[in-house]
Amino acid sequence: MSDKYIALHALLRQINDLEAAAALLEWDEETYMPVGGAAARGRQLGTLKRVAHELFCGDRIGQLLDDLKDEEYDSQSIKASLLRVTRRDYERARRVSADLVSEIASASAAARAAWRTAKEHNDYDHFAPHLRRMVELNVCKGEALGSAERPYDGLLEEFEPGMDADTVTAVFNALRGALVPLVTAFSADSQLEDGFLAEKYPLQAQWDFGIRVLGDIGYDLQRGRQDTSAHPFSTSFSTSDVRITTRLREDYLPAGLFGTMHEAGHALYEQGVDPALEGTLLASGTSLGMHESQSRLWENQVGRSSAFWDHYYGPLQQVFPQQLGGIRQKDFCRAINRVKPSLIRVEADEVTYNLHIMVRYELELQLVGGDLDVAALPDAWNDRMEQYLGIRPETNSDGVLQDIHWALGAFGYFPTYALGNLMAAQLFSTAENAIPELEGYLARGEFAPLREWLTEHVYTYGRRLSANEVLQRATGSALTAEHWLAYVERKFGDLYGIW
Amino acid sequence: MSDKYIALHALLRQINDLEAAAALLEWDEETYMPVGGAAARGRQLGTLKRVAHELFCGDRIGQLLDDLKDEEYDSQSIKASLLRVTRRDYERARRVSADLVSEIASASAAARAAWRTAKEHNDYDHFAPHLRRMVELNVCKGEALGSAERPYDGLLEEFEPGMDADTVTAVFNALRGALVPLVTAFSADSQLEDGFLAEKYPLQAQWDFGIRVLGDIGYDLQRGRQDTSAHPFSTSFSTSDVRITTRLREDYLPAGLFGTMHEAGHALYEQGVDPALEGTLLASGTSLGMHESQSRLWENQVGRSSAFWDHYYGPLQQVFPQQLGGIRQKDFCRAINRVKPSLIRVEADEVTYNLHIMVRYELELQLVGGDLDVAALPDAWNDRMEQYLGIRPETNSDGVLQDIHWALGAFGYFPTYALGNLMAAQLFSTAENAIPELEGYLARGEFAPLREWLTEHVYTYGRRLSANEVLQRATGSALTAEHWLAYVERKFGDLYGIW
Repeated sequence: MSDKYIALHALLRQINDLEAAAALLEWDEETYMPVGGAAARGRQLGTLKRVAHELFCGDRIGQLLDDLKDEEYDSQSIKASLLRVTRRDYERARRVSADLVSEIASASAAARAAWRTAKEHNDYDHFAPHLRRMVELNVCKGEALGSAERPYDGLLEEFEPGMDADTVTAVFNALRGALVPLVTAFSADSQLEDGFLAEKYPLQAQWDFGIRVLGDIGYDLQRGRQDTSAHPFSTSFSTSDVRITTRLREDYLPAGLFGTMHEAGHALYEQGVDPALEGTLLASGTSLGMHESQSRLWENQVGRSSAFWDHYYGPLQQVFPQQLGGIRQKDFCRAINRVKPSLIRVEADEVTYNLHIMVRYELELQLVGGDLDVAALPDAWNDRMEQYLGIRPETNSDGVLQDIHWALGAFGYFPTYALGNLMAAQLFSTAENAIPELEGYLARGEFAPLREWLTEHVYTYGRRLSANEVLQRATGSALTAEHWLAYVERKFGDLYGIW
Repeated sequence: MSDKYIALHALLRQINDLEAAAALLEWDEETYMPVGGAAARGRQLGTLKRVAHELFCGDRIGQLLDDLKDEEYDSQSIKASLLRVTRRDYERARRVSADLVSEIASASAAARAAWRTAKEHNDYDHFAPHLRRMVELNVCKGEALGSAERPYDGLLEEFEPGMDADTVTAVFNALRGALVPLVTAFSADSQLEDGFLAEKYPLQAQWDFGIRVLGDIGYDLQRGRQDTSAHPFSTSFSTSDVRITTRLREDYLPAGLFGTMHEAGHALYEQGVDPALEGTLLASGTSLGMHESQSRLWENQVGRSSAFWDHYYGPLQQVFPQQLGGIRQKDFCRAINRVKPSLIRVEADEVTYNLHIMVRYELELQLVGGDLDVAALPDAWNDRMEQYLGIRPETNSDGVLQDIHWALGAFGYFPTYALGNLMAAQLFSTAENAIPELEGYLARGEFAPLREWLTEHVYTYGRRLSANEVLQRATGSALTAEHWLAYVERKFGDLYGIW
């Protein structure tokens, strides 16, 4: 191994260590930090991130990359992958000036505060000037990262490397045409009884049931842990320390149960990365969409399936006999899969969820492209909601103000949620073909076959392959909405006895 | 304020942020980290500490200190203090070569592993070569930090700035002459009944009682928190995030109760530092001895006093009626203050504890001074134990191998434990004079007068004053053993009705 490669590897590991430390500080902030710690914590995080960023963007990395340009590594080797991904990240990081980074950070701090107030008081005008500023600054960022003609692509590439707006638009268009009538069909059964999900479910029993499921699906609690936080998340400090949080609600069983499985999906991905990549920037999920595909796959394709509850419904009834003793498994499965157009994305069911994403994607694409003014955004939002979901928000708090992403400066982030749903279905249907009797395994609580297939075809690569490469290799085709539509038609058709 | 001062302050804050992050990683390692996280955590800590060390030892700090040499700040100002303490730390840090630091680190890693094995198998010979190496390397370090003639002073100064071996020896000699007969007198009552302390005490009830006491004595749980760990400790990430851990034992009540108060004493010190010092190297305790004085003061002068239990014994009996319902307060107080020579330092009572320290201090002084060979250490240890405490270890595991400090390379650390005990008594007796009715306050569970006095005279200064300056200003005299002897004579004389 060349000395230059060793030097690059050591420097990247040092940067990785600083970033992992920052991630632990953030984890602590959300889980255990006393309120008094907030001010110093913000300062400490700023320092860690700045030091890591300066090390990464400094000339040293560029020099080493140049020195290593002519080394002939096998293009499939870890070394070649590390050089390729490092160069990509390095060039992107150098393209955005420190001034712009800092300007976005301070504008975002103000925008977040304004967003909170605006949402609380249903006062879009209070947020509008901040949103306008965030759009302007992110157009600059997108131009630097992509091109003057296609700033949105530069932003999207941050979250979904290799993806562009044309592809997303084509996939979403194919999806929407088929989806809108499905929503109408599935949400016809408005008499569906699901009140039993909102009985009182003691938290400790929910926690214990969740821990049992986590262990069963193969989340390694020797290399991770679960805590509670206001907003569930997963984070990792190494491939052997991947943590999740959950938020249990005493008055609504699905929140904790499926939230836990969702975060576990993210964590299985990170725990499944090849240990040889540990400590490098290859040792994490390859894109937000692919990451979300794993959280959604374990939450939905597994956790909300009838097969899963063939195994777990008995035990769940034993834990909550008063709440569920008189409820048939089929009715439970219908209730946790109820389809109903609603205003709030994070509460949306599996079928309508992607429509919420399309609304945001189309609007942010127009905002960044200069085709929609911030002042006209609320009406545009409401019109699209009515068009796609058949309901119109009565307030902006329940509409355009509901999500924090734009105040964070995260333009190009929303589509990854829907891309994740589609990838999940595409990977899962391939796994169904590859693993005879997959449903039977799930129905017996045996998750190793599925987890091992995903590890082999997705997790182990970390960032060595792009999301599209993973899909091509694992499923034989690029991203398509087909599998997801087929999955939804079959699952909900069966559940509601419609077809 | 000069630009140079602002630049120095900003750079020191950045270093402080990195060190605080490292401290959080260590806290997490002891409290919540899954076992799988250990390998990466060691690497991450190494990186954080190295980056912080390189920033601190780089020429930039030295240049700024030189540039600021002629600034005329009031010698009592924070600015002057910061320059003084920074220069001290900077010059010390630069005196030890990076090679020596790294050699000590790797020798210590090997020594710790050997020590564990040696202690487990009562095999001193297995540890001896590692100990010899640690002595040699620390002599080098001590010579670099102090002088070739007095290497021990250079090492001691690391933990107890401003202290030297001659002073410690003089104070310890004065103490020992009076102490040995006291131990004999107080340990006469071998019939003392204390078996009730080893009944079964449910952990949750112990935890709740501890939290109540923590709140009462003024440990601010909005600016700190308590967790459990195998070895209790306190740590701080800012003056507003000062955490403690405890270890409760179901089969021995005092372990958790007084361990909690001990760590709370450390934490009250750190929480009491002037917020204006936040984010600088002045924002922590001024020496290990002074720090220990506060843990011991709250554990012993407060927690093991009769007055304290005038207030808390009733509530404690209510929590543990079966275990303590039939035990009189006086007998409880005698039991938690039982004096009995024993082999293990960490289990020693308040009276014999300092003798354990003297054994270690005198031996390490000889080791570093070249007056005692590592091969002769076990006998020397046992002889001194017999001479000072009247008992002789039967195994080296119960003798010279019991503590990890020398394997860590911490020579000059042990005496600070005893110095802390003496400082505690000296400060407490001054507080008793300054606060009329202090005992009455304690007996009513009112701790604010004591805590405020300590904050005003000790805590608020952080590292602006040395331990000796704190003592001089607060008590009017340098360190002396007098107050501690008087305290012990009075307290234990009263308890046992001897005088």
